[in-house]
This record gives sequence, structure tokens and C-alpha cells, in this order.
Amino acid sequence: MVCEKMIDRLYVLQLERGFFTPRLASKMLCIAKSDAKKMIREMLDKGFVREVEGKKGRYMLSKKGRKMVRVGLTGGCFDILHAGHIKMLESAKKLCDVLVVVIASDETIIKEKNRQAVFDEKERKMLVGAIKYVDFVIIGSKSMNIKSVIERVKPDIIIFGKDQKKLEERVKELIPRLKIKPKIKRIGTWVKGKKSSKIRSWLAKLNSAY
Amino acid sequence: MVCEKMIDRLYVLQLERGFFTPRLASKMLCIAKSDAKKMIREMLDKGFVREVEGKKGRYMLSKKGRKMVRVGLTGGCFDILHAGHIKMLESAKKLCDVLVVVIASDETIIKEKNRQAVFDEKERKMLVGAIKYVDFVIIGSKSMNIKSVIERVKPDIIIFGKDQKKLEERVKELIPRLKIKPKIKRIGTWVKGKKSSKIRSWLAKLNSAY
Repeated sequence: MVCEKMIDRLYVLQLERGFFTPRLASKMLCIAKSDAKKMIREMLDKGFVREVEGKKGRYMLSKKGRKMVRVGLTGGCFDILHAGHIKMLESAKKLCDVLVVVIASDETIIKEKNRQAVFDEKERKMLVGAIKYVDFVIIGSKSMNIKSVIERVKPDIIIFGKDQKKLEERVKELIPRLKIKPKIKRIGTWVKGKKSSKIRSWLAKLNSAY
Repeated sequence: MVCEKMIDRLYVLQLERGFFTPRLASKMLCIAKSDAKKMIREMLDKGFVREVEGKKGRYMLSKKGRKMVRVGLTGGCFDILHAGHIKMLESAKKLCDVLVVVIASDETIIKEKNRQAVFDEKERKMLVGAIKYVDFVIIGSKSMNIKSVIERVKPDIIIFGKDQKKLEERVKELIPRLKIKPKIKRIGTWVKGKKSSKIRSWLAKLNSAY
């Protein structure tokens, strides 16, 4: 595994825990703890990593290290996975090194779509987290506080799907008030398949037929 | 990436194409073509790889190389992915190096379950193939010829889910007639979630409510 890929994985650990240690790094990268220690020491020497203030043995990427990782952020409901979701996540991953996905919370779905999610937020998190192109999943806040998510993830690029124009507008309005200035990109390869809303009505017909 | 992992990836290429070349290996492993050439040459020297008879530049794993890869085979409908599927695939992957999944064909689902699949076989193949734990996906034959799938994949272990007792019995009956003798394992961690059949009836209720 090349060094760059390792920095990516360390940033995922940092998103998860707020820091990383040689033990956590060895577990995630499937390498010996002694190798993880050596790697972190090398990165400290190069200035890619710094020790967390007042917390000996806990590390974070430095500004220099963080600049080596291109972080992408995308989001959605991801209720009943279909080919469109996968294509979208695959395209999003091509634009970054670490892809973070925000899953709409159950409450947000009720509020925004006026219906319950088929799968609850925990199950949707697990499903999306199992996709090859996804590095980290966050469940959105109840109040859909986009600003706090962006401030936590600090994305270099925010990626929207074809049908997320409204959300894109909301994020664009937010950006002048943020310290970071992520790029905005809308992607939308057309995918032959069934969209979630179509799937639901299709299933209802199917169920009444049998 | 360690050598063992590379052999695993080469076997996936071999399943896909019937052989591998330095060009295909370089693409799959994200390494330079010259490095892929060097790697294959080293594996030839060690006897892990052999050239395909009469096809210069095309390679396959030798018997010795193939023995280094523990291949697992599992299968199912995988119509509407849920947490149970992911848990099952994760557990299956822990039992092998390369996990091959056979997706029931659309015709098999109609025949066995007396209903159409929500997602067609191509979309189900794409979805399951996007799961982190899955290395290769095959769509089952129309006639659900389990024997031909096993003979193609040559699994070291065949893994069944908790609710696949019938299929397990069918495979167990087959084994005495096969050249290879795969192990059989049934796994079944209980997963808090909704099963496909429950999801369908749940969705029907939901749709009529709105």
C-alpha cells in the first residue's frame, strides 16, 4: 500500500474517533503495530501528522497532511439501494480520495418527504457503509444542520446528484459563511433502473397482485 | 499490497476472463504494467502461475498457486438489499480470501418464489458487486444449474445463509458427483432488521397509507 493511501485511511480514522493511535492504525491497515508506529513516526518527521495537544500517543493529520487528502462529501436518503445510487457513489469517489456520505436522518425524511423511511437510519448507514466506494458514513442531524456536517468533514468538494438541485442551492448559500471553501459539483450519469419512488409504487402493485 | 492479496486478485481476473495478462493485472491492481510483468514473472518462477497452453502472454494460476487462494461461494436472490444480506456477506468473506456470489436469475426467482424480482438480475448483480465483501458475482443459469456454477468457481467452501437449508441439501447431494470436495458451512447471525418479504408487505401498507 502506498503512503498516500495510508494518509487517506488515517483521515477516515480521524473522522471516526477524532484522532488515531498506532493501535487503531494497525487494526485498520492490517499491519503490525510496530509498523504502524514506524509509519506514524515517519509522518511526524515529514510534518504530515501532529500529536493532539495534551494527549500523548494520539495523533491527527497536520494541515500539510490534510492537504494530501482530497475529501468528498455527498448525501441523500439512500432508502432501498438501486443502481442509480451505486453509479452516483462510484462517480463521486472518482472525484476524491475519501468519500464521506451523509445519510438523511429518519426525522428529516419524514419532514422533507412526508413519509417514513423503509429502512431506519442505522440500517441505511450500514448498507451505504458497505459500498466499495464509501469511506465513511454520518447520519445527518435531526434538524438537518448542513453547516455542522460540512464543518466536521471539511470537504474539498461537495458532490450532488442530478435530483438534488434544492439541496445544492442551500449549500451554495451557506458557503460564504464557512471558513472552508469547498468546490461544488453536480453529477448525473443517467442510469437505466428504477428510482426509489417508482420502486415503492411498483412494489405496492406487486403485493396486491399476489 | 502483499503477494497473497495479489494472487487473490489474479484469481478474480481469471474467473472473469478465463486468464490474466500483465495489462489486465496492472489495471486491476493499480500498478504500472512493468511492475505487473515483473510480478507475474516472479510468480512463474515460483510455480504459482502458468502460461495458458497455446496462448502466449495469457496466464492462469497453477495448481500450486490456486491452493494459496481460499475461494468461498455463496448465493441468493439479493432482491432489495438489507442489513441481513450485508451481515451474511461479511461473515462469508471472513471464511475465505475470494468471495464469489451467485445471484438467482430472474427466471429462477419466478420459478422458485412464484413472483417477479423487484430488481432485474443485471441490477442485482451490480448492487451485490458493489459490496465491499464481494469479489465476484455470477448470475445463475436459467435452469439453476448449481453443478455448473460449482465446477466453474471451484470453491473451497460453500456458505449458506440461515434460511437456505433446502439449497444446502441440494448441494450436499451433488457433492459426491463432483471432482472437487468443497466444505459446507451454514452461517446465520441474527440481524435486527426487516427481511425482504416483510419489506414488501410493509411497503404495500405504506403506499396505501399515503
